[in-house]
Amino acid sequence: MENNFEHRVRTGFEKQGFMSTIGAKIEEVQPGFCRIHLPFSERVAQQHGFFHGGVISAMADNAAGFAGYSLMSSDEQPLSVEFKINFLAPAKGKLLEARGKVLRSGRRLKHVNVEVFCLDNGIETLVAIALATIASSRSVKEIPG
Amino acid sequence: MENNFEHRVRTGFEKQGFMSTIGAKIEEVQPGFCRIHLPFSERVAQQHGFFHGGVISAMADNAAGFAGYSLMSSDEQPLSVEFKINFLAPAKGKLLEARGKVLRSGRRLKHVNVEVFCLDNGIETLVAIALATIASSRSVKEIPG
Amino acid sequence: MENNFEHRVRTGFEKQGFMSTIGAKIEEVQPGFCRIHLPFSERVAQQHGFFHGGVISAMADNAAGFAGYSLMSSDEQPLSVEFKINFLAPAKGKLLEARGKVLRSGRRLKHVNVEVFCLDNGIETLVAIALATIASSRSVKEIPG
Amino acid sequence: MENNFEHRVRTGFEKQGFMSTIGAKIEEVQPGFCRIHLPFSERVAQQHGFFHGGVISAMADNAAGFAGYSLMSSDEQPLSVEFKINFLAPAKGKLLEARGKVLRSGRRLKHVNVEVFCLDNGIETLVAIALATIASSRSVKEIPG
Repeated sequence: MENNFEHRVRTGFEKQGFMSTIGAKIEEVQPGFCRIHLPFSERVAQQHGFFHGGVISAMADNAAGFAGYSLMSSDEQPLSVEFKINFLAPAKGKLLEARGKVLRSGRRLKHVNVEVFCLDNGIETLVAIALATIASSRSVKEIPG
Repeated sequence: MENNFEHRVRTGFEKQGFMSTIGAKIEEVQPGFCRIHLPFSERVAQQHGFFHGGVISAMADNAAGFAGYSLMSSDEQPLSVEFKINFLAPAKGKLLEARGKVLRSGRRLKHVNVEVFCLDNGIETLVAIALATIASSRSVKEIPG
Repeated sequence: MENNFEHRVRTGFEKQGFMSTIGAKIEEVQPGFCRIHLPFSERVAQQHGFFHGGVISAMADNAAGFAGYSLMSSDEQPLSVEFKINFLAPAKGKLLEARGKVLRSGRRLKHVNVEVFCLDNGIETLVAIALATIASSRSVKEIPG
Repeated sequence: MENNFEHRVRTGFEKQGFMSTIGAKIEEVQPGFCRIHLPFSERVAQQHGFFHGGVISAMADNAAGFAGYSLMSSDEQPLSVEFKINFLAPAKGKLLEARGKVLRSGRRLKHVNVEVFCLDNGIETLVAIALATIASSRSVKEIPG
């Protein structure tokens, strides 16, 4: 049986049309941690056949948001305040994995570290690293602040 | 007649499967400037029917990359080194527009400022602002650095 | 006569030992805007006689914090949540000027854009640009969140 | 006996007037790693007696720059391209320690992760985390790019 936070995270993820568009799936949720998978396809490619940087960023943003969401109460929603990402290596491979981990969980703000790996022929390469700030909101119409 | 840089930018953009996946189009290219449009659809939504933050980030990243590309020589390719984005308002509307403008163009690195607007019922709202570093590369296999 | 927000900002600034250490002064405060000056001296130099990058960052951080503070109520304090800075040109000159401008002022979070200029022989050069998130806090012991 | 990279890093550090102004010292240099200490004093304080955020940023920037410098050849200089920092906890204590670690070392760009700790009564607190991009330059007048 899934506990409550896991159910909320998975349900929230499934409601995002964009994650379905690119074919991303939640692999693992723990309190303060979230792991997302995305298989390679032409849909998510840039001009040289690698994962598009914008897709890598979107995966990082989402891993951060859902890692933060796992620590919120049931009447709160995660809102991305900001994030920063460094691209370390070309994302060439069959699978992209983003791992978000909450570094500090405040009442309103979560600071999240994200690592994005690309898996190819059994080799895992760190392709990007990100730092994100996620706010808790009690209204879907609210914006961070 | 399109001049050379505009042709290269538009051709590069069209080769990106991901931009086609979400339905984005280049609206304008000038030396050091690029404007991209994305109409709203369920494909690019998050759970509340707004543009997904990851999509906003991808649009910002691409506007930065192609603004930088417009200033490169014909044997160079743009590579995203890193970027940072702040989300200022919910992206609710029919159209997303990302405007990338090169602030400083060095031989190898371009510093680019990006503003992302959402248009709804004739009203334009600044929904995100980003700062990006774009590298020039002479090899498609090369990574920044 | 100074109005209330200007008095609070100037008093807060003067209490910072570090700003006195480097010789920085507030030049201008408006609602949502702050301008800080720092004359060059050996105290703030790096190894080639330019303003140190860490000093430029500190000036950017402070211009952001006090621009945000100008919009807070009298029982609130500014706290830096995070910032990002791009260095565009060497900061060689007699005076450094940081200009912080609030882009969006939420109840708890202010998004601030900062431009840092270096003045030398009457020529003004944009040497850095920053984006910062400033939180409002009601307790000096509180941390963002 | 110090090897070559350590000598260069320590000499470069000692030439920075600003590091001397605040009282910072290099504690450790390894290839791709640098650790810097700063004892608390009124000189580096903000208005509540904590380490100033600008000082924390300057320490992070420098730890990143010198970690990158440790991997450069003898005719290269480190230049900060950009960095981003998240503040996780108030920096209250007797000593600040910044640890820079190179995540990826390219020919021209180093991506560096920095953790900043505050030590108080034997307890170590992670007060900030940063991501930086450091360029190698062959000219002191050159700017990144």
